[in-house]
Amino acid sequence: MAIKLYDLAGENPDRRFSPYCWRTKMALTHKGLEFETIPWRFTDKEKIAFSGSERVPVIVDGDQVVADSWKIATYLEDTYRERPSLFGGVHSRAAALFINSWADTVLNPTLARLLVMGILEHLDPGDRDYFRESREKRFGITLEEFSADVEGNTKALRAVLEPLRLTLASQPFLGGDTPLYADYIVFGSLQWARSIGKTRLLELNDPVEAWRSRLLDSFGGFARNAHGYW
Amino acid sequence: MAIKLYDLAGENPDRRFSPYCWRTKMALTHKGLEFETIPWRFTDKEKIAFSGSERVPVIVDGDQVVADSWKIATYLEDTYRERPSLFGGVHSRAAALFINSWADTVLNPTLARLLVMGILEHLDPGDRDYFRESREKRFGITLEEFSADVEGNTKALRAVLEPLRLTLASQPFLGGDTPLYADYIVFGSLQWARSIGKTRLLELNDPVEAWRSRLLDSFGGFARNAHGYW
Repeated sequence: MAIKLYDLAGENPDRRFSPYCWRTKMALTHKGLEFETIPWRFTDKEKIAFSGSERVPVIVDGDQVVADSWKIATYLEDTYRERPSLFGGVHSRAAALFINSWADTVLNPTLARLLVMGILEHLDPGDRDYFRESREKRFGITLEEFSADVEGNTKALRAVLEPLRLTLASQPFLGGDTPLYADYIVFGSLQWARSIGKTRLLELNDPVEAWRSRLLDSFGGFARNAHGYW
Repeated sequence: MAIKLYDLAGENPDRRFSPYCWRTKMALTHKGLEFETIPWRFTDKEKIAFSGSERVPVIVDGDQVVADSWKIATYLEDTYRERPSLFGGVHSRAAALFINSWADTVLNPTLARLLVMGILEHLDPGDRDYFRESREKRFGITLEEFSADVEGNTKALRAVLEPLRLTLASQPFLGGDTPLYADYIVFGSLQWARSIGKTRLLELNDPVEAWRSRLLDSFGGFARNAHGYW
């Protein structure tokens, strides 16, 4: 039976933009596991109440329910050991948690300033008030103020990616010669940007862009075939 | 024959403050390799000219000469395979390079603002003019200007450590259950701070401080026994 994934969707149910759900989709694909996605909206909290979580990703694998992208990744790794490893060992799993923490606390908050207006534009109408109100409360300013300095925010994004850029000068993937979950963590953030943002955020000669392109093409273009702009 | 390490020293030759040399010393100790250090000053460029590098760490292991902390770590790992692994596998080595890049481009530049005056104070008199001139040229402002906002810089440091803090909420070390080179990369930066800075930069209840304390105590207190303030 295919694994079910509750996956954040926009007004167009095929537009899937959550960076955390992208981590999970890449992980499921890497493992070669069959899965089906259920489009989910921010205000569909009751539809995932059974999971104990108010946010996606949530997966249902037979009688197992797992919420939170990191917990899902470790669940898949520990449950499907005979399939391609997501981490390549216990120590690289430990190091991947640092990359996960960096993406959550540094990369995604930087990206958010560039993406909130695009999210709002692509949301299901029923989600728009919720999104604006909850985010404006979190940020303490309006979405327009939060996102106003496009040039500065773009510069900040490119600066924040410097550790990734430097790493990719020595190896093709964060996982080494082949992509692993560490790559999908960061790639998920860029799929977020691609799915609802019309502006190309990376320069074509940026090694990060070349790495993103390799991941877009991986698994037969799985990520490239998803709804997105660049 | 013991490995020789050229190790940056202050006016007091026992004060060893280079974050990069600390990475190497922890790596050598982790591997259980015998080594002796040669105190080296910034202006001793001719003493390491044989290595092709103008900076330390430089190690001499028999007829092998290796410069650059990352290259030294991979040299030690690949040469002394039978000894405790520094990385725990090829994939965690790949992920450790991201942590190395983060420390080099984010953590150390943030720390530098808090440390430059302490470095100047502890340098060998013959190094002081060189240090001030080269760094003021690099930063484009005086060292006093570069380091003026102590409160802001301390706040910035604690913020920059957030991905580490979050990771340590789930596991005792970046390497997982035991410390690996990934830990020594970041710990080296804090040894830099400890060796020439009189001000405690971390709050006692910070999980990063608890982790630092575990590493200070590791290998029989090897790092704690070094000259330092906190």
